[in-house]
Amino acid sequence: MDDALSQTSDPEEVEARLAMPLSEAMLTQRSVRRVDPGPVEDRTVLRCIELALQAPTASNAQNWEFIVVKDQAVKAALAAQYRRIWAIYATLGRWRSRAARDDREQRVMRSVAWQVKHFEQIPVLVVCCLRRGPWPPLLPKPPLLASSHYGSIYPSAQNLLLAARSVGLGGALVTLPLWSTTLARRALRLPLNVEPCCIVTLGWPKGRYGPKPRRPVGSVAHLDQYGNRPWDGPA
Amino acid sequence: MDDALSQTSDPEEVEARLAMPLSEAMLTQRSVRRVDPGPVEDRTVLRCIELALQAPTASNAQNWEFIVVKDQAVKAALAAQYRRIWAIYATLGRWRSRAARDDREQRVMRSVAWQVKHFEQIPVLVVCCLRRGPWPPLLPKPPLLASSHYGSIYPSAQNLLLAARSVGLGGALVTLPLWSTTLARRALRLPLNVEPCCIVTLGWPKGRYGPKPRRPVGSVAHLDQYGNRPWDGPA
Repeated sequence: MDDALSQTSDPEEVEARLAMPLSEAMLTQRSVRRVDPGPVEDRTVLRCIELALQAPTASNAQNWEFIVVKDQAVKAALAAQYRRIWAIYATLGRWRSRAARDDREQRVMRSVAWQVKHFEQIPVLVVCCLRRGPWPPLLPKPPLLASSHYGSIYPSAQNLLLAARSVGLGGALVTLPLWSTTLARRALRLPLNVEPCCIVTLGWPKGRYGPKPRRPVGSVAHLDQYGNRPWDGPA
Repeated sequence: MDDALSQTSDPEEVEARLAMPLSEAMLTQRSVRRVDPGPVEDRTVLRCIELALQAPTASNAQNWEFIVVKDQAVKAALAAQYRRIWAIYATLGRWRSRAARDDREQRVMRSVAWQVKHFEQIPVLVVCCLRRGPWPPLLPKPPLLASSHYGSIYPSAQNLLLAARSVGLGGALVTLPLWSTTLARRALRLPLNVEPCCIVTLGWPKGRYGPKPRRPVGSVAHLDQYGNRPWDGPA
C-alpha cells in the first residue's frame, strides 16, 4: 500500500482520489512532514476542509474556524514560536531517546526537526480554531469540560488529515507553533473568543504514505474494566 | 446516500464495508443514537478499534486505552451519571432552544434524551482513555498542553466513528456520562494515571445514516488572518 500520488490540480481527479477505500486511507495515513514548497490549489484545500466540517462537534455547535495560512509573514511568526519551543523539546527528547535508545523516536525527531527548519516553506498551514461557547457562570466546570471542548475540533482535524492523505497531499498535525496562544492570536488576528487549537500542515509530499507500527489491538482493548484483556495474545 | 445497512457478523462482509469510499463515509456520518439492543460481535468492535489505532497521537505516544463495556453493572454506573448531569443540561437546553425556536436543536435534544433513557440497552460502550505522560515538573505548562493532550484521543475516536459508519453500525460520541472522572474511574477500575476522555456508543442502528446540514466552507475558512473570507458567498 506504499504509494506516492502525483500532484494534481484537477477537481475531478481530486474527487476520484477522495473515494479511496476508508480502511486503506486509515491504514496508510501517517505524518508526512517533508513536503514540496510548491503551491497547493485553494480549491483542493477547501474541499478537504469541507470534509473536515462533516465531523461531529459537542452539542452540534459547529463552533470551528479554519485559518488557511499562505502568507510568508504569518508563517514566519508561527515558525519563530515553533523554533523557540522546539529548542526545549528537542533537548528533552534527545535525553529521553538516548536513554531509551529508541531508533523510531529518533527518526520522528529528525522529521520534526526538518519541519521546524522549513516551516515557512510549507505551502499551506491550516490553523484549526474553536469559538468558545457561553458557559453558565454559576455552574461548576466539570473536569471533563476540556475534553468535550477539544472533542469539537480534533475529529475534524482527523477528517482533514484523512482527506489530505487520500488526495495524496502530505499532512501532519502540530500544536507547538501555537504554544503561546497570545502570540498566535496576534499573528492570526484572532478575536479573544476564538482559540487556536492545532495546525494541519499541507503540501505535496517528498516522503511517502504507508503502513506504520502500532500496538496490537488486544493490548489496548479491555473488556468492561481496566486490566481485563481477553483479546490480548495471538489471534 | 441515505442507507441502512443490514446487521452482519461476517468478517469478510465487515472488511468489504470498511472499503467504503472515504468521502461517502464522511458525508454520511452522523450521530446515530437510537440503536437496537441486540449484540454486536466483539470481532467487529475490535476491528473498528484497530482502525482507530491508526490515528496520530502527540509525539507518537500511542498512550491510549479502550474499555469495551458490555457489562450491565458498569453500564448502569455510567448511565446513572449521565442521567444526573443530563437533567441539568436538558433544562438549560430547553431554555436556550425555546428562546431560539430552533427545531434542529430540539430534534438533537430528543435524540439525546432517548440515549440517556436507554443507555444501559446500548450493546457496546467504548470508553476512550489516555494514559498521562510525564510532564517535567519544573517546566511551565503552556496553555496549549490540554489541546495537545486531547489531540491524542479524538482523532482515534473519529476513526472509530467513521469505521462504525462504514460497517453500518450506529455510533455517537458522548462525554457527559464521564462527567465525574472519579466515579467513572471507579466503575471502570481505571488507575489514576488513566483518564477517561469520551465514549463512542455502538449498536446496530434503528435510525439511518445520511447527509446533515453544515455551514458552507466559505463561511468558516479564512485566508491568512481571521475575518478575511475570500471564499465566502456563491461558489
